[in-house]
Amino acid sequence: MNNTLYSINGKIVPEHEALIPATDRGFLYGDGLFETVHAYGRALFRLPHHLRRLADGARFLEIDPAPDLKLLARRAQALVDAANFPEANVRLTYTRGSGPRGPSIRGKFTPLTVIMATRHQRPSGARSRSGATAIIAGLRRQESAAASTFKTLNYIDQILARREADRAGVDEALLLNNAGLLCEGSASNISIVRNGAVTIPDPRRVGALPGIAQLTALEAAHNLDIPVIQTSLGPWDTQQCDEAFLSGSMREITPLLRIGEHTIGTGKPGPLTRKLIAEYRRIVERECKPFMY
Amino acid sequence: MNNTLYSINGKIVPEHEALIPATDRGFLYGDGLFETVHAYGRALFRLPHHLRRLADGARFLEIDPAPDLKLLARRAQALVDAANFPEANVRLTYTRGSGPRGPSIRGKFTPLTVIMATRHQRPSGARSRSGATAIIAGLRRQESAAASTFKTLNYIDQILARREADRAGVDEALLLNNAGLLCEGSASNISIVRNGAVTIPDPRRVGALPGIAQLTALEAAHNLDIPVIQTSLGPWDTQQCDEAFLSGSMREITPLLRIGEHTIGTGKPGPLTRKLIAEYRRIVERECKPFMY
Repeated sequence: MNNTLYSINGKIVPEHEALIPATDRGFLYGDGLFETVHAYGRALFRLPHHLRRLADGARFLEIDPAPDLKLLARRAQALVDAANFPEANVRLTYTRGSGPRGPSIRGKFTPLTVIMATRHQRPSGARSRSGATAIIAGLRRQESAAASTFKTLNYIDQILARREADRAGVDEALLLNNAGLLCEGSASNISIVRNGAVTIPDPRRVGALPGIAQLTALEAAHNLDIPVIQTSLGPWDTQQCDEAFLSGSMREITPLLRIGEHTIGTGKPGPLTRKLIAEYRRIVERECKPFMY
Repeated sequence: MNNTLYSINGKIVPEHEALIPATDRGFLYGDGLFETVHAYGRALFRLPHHLRRLADGARFLEIDPAPDLKLLARRAQALVDAANFPEANVRLTYTRGSGPRGPSIRGKFTPLTVIMATRHQRPSGARSRSGATAIIAGLRRQESAAASTFKTLNYIDQILARREADRAGVDEALLLNNAGLLCEGSASNISIVRNGAVTIPDPRRVGALPGIAQLTALEAAHNLDIPVIQTSLGPWDTQQCDEAFLSGSMREITPLLRIGEHTIGTGKPGPLTRKLIAEYRRIVERECKPFMY
């Protein structure tokens, strides 16, 4: 069964034809950006939010020409339509492309767009309700590096952090920045619930990626009249909270039950997290229902 | 005129056939390593040193299978022989390749080797003697990140630093680490000369890449009975030195004449740097002469 379909600069191809130039700077230097979008049926959930974040990153890296967001949206939609998966993980990559060699970005480059749609197997309801475990990674993120607030192709920090999680036999690794403040997971954002409020690390203050699923979770909180606080959090805050959860475009919201040796709350998914999971689903269904199978 | 020739997993191809899978993790996450080797005629200068550094990096990233250094050396040599350039910039890239998606490295991957040989135009003698200028970049390197002591494909820090240099109209940007200590340039290492000794930042102490051209420069110093000191250096040290130079596999040794507003020494290439340039050339010729055109 073919589980991934590709779009290379708008041309839809199967895996064995999904090839890119070896001169691409995404490959040579990680000089590019990506987004992972959840497709529910034919609906790309919050694609405009993802494209805006991609465009912000391209402006930061000064990729020229800037991404044509309407064209990217059309290409992503065409790929999802062609793939026809019930649910898909749609990764959109935009790089500076090929041009002069070396770290300088002077000169003329030809950006590259690669979109991959991979069939998504959602964990069964029981498994997603069962929650996740994490550790605090030993590796630190650099809060002073503006690049860490964009989703660039430089992902070795996340890979090394996830390796720590794999070794510890847990699902996720949470990264602190150099100042010891909580940033994010290797492939998720973290939120805690304390005194009835959802509290998240302010992404720009700590140097984390502003998560689109996390924003959706905050919107869910707003819909439910749950207060939201953006601040700085340390690892100690995760030991003094009532509930915690991870968010990500593919996982939506997952209760976080343990960090290292510390059990969060009762060790079971908390009432507020469960409400947020349900409200997140309502938001998805409201926006995507007409396009879901 | 064809100025670059490619080797993809050992197959020598021209540019339009130099393609790699879009699923390669070098492309998706910068999950790989590279080396830039100077070929003088058919001789790959200090290739074993480069391959050892690559192997160290692969061990750090736990790329499995590890690179077969003999095979890589044969492939690089075959490419250089086929390209037949008088001098070449040979970039060797080794990635984790394709396999399961996501930051986790559990699972089976098939590493990818890409080698590119590009005709190298050496600056005329007059230009290389004339020296370079630099600034201290605003962007900081993370000294606690072990990854920064390997040559991974995560090169956005270097790209952003070089952009600062381009804007300032200078040749190179020098990066400090979070502790404010001097690390390296965006594509070179820095050495200073003080009280008759060559002094360099200890790469492992400050979190910099141990440069192979810099090691060759230290060997040149040793040959000339010039003392060598590895220590920590701050930007202030560059203001209190007699000479400074940049080293890199392609540039060899370049006198550094100005950093920001500060002129180094007399503002002309110093006597010790000139001796090191000549001795570096002698080392190259001794090792490569039989293979040079």
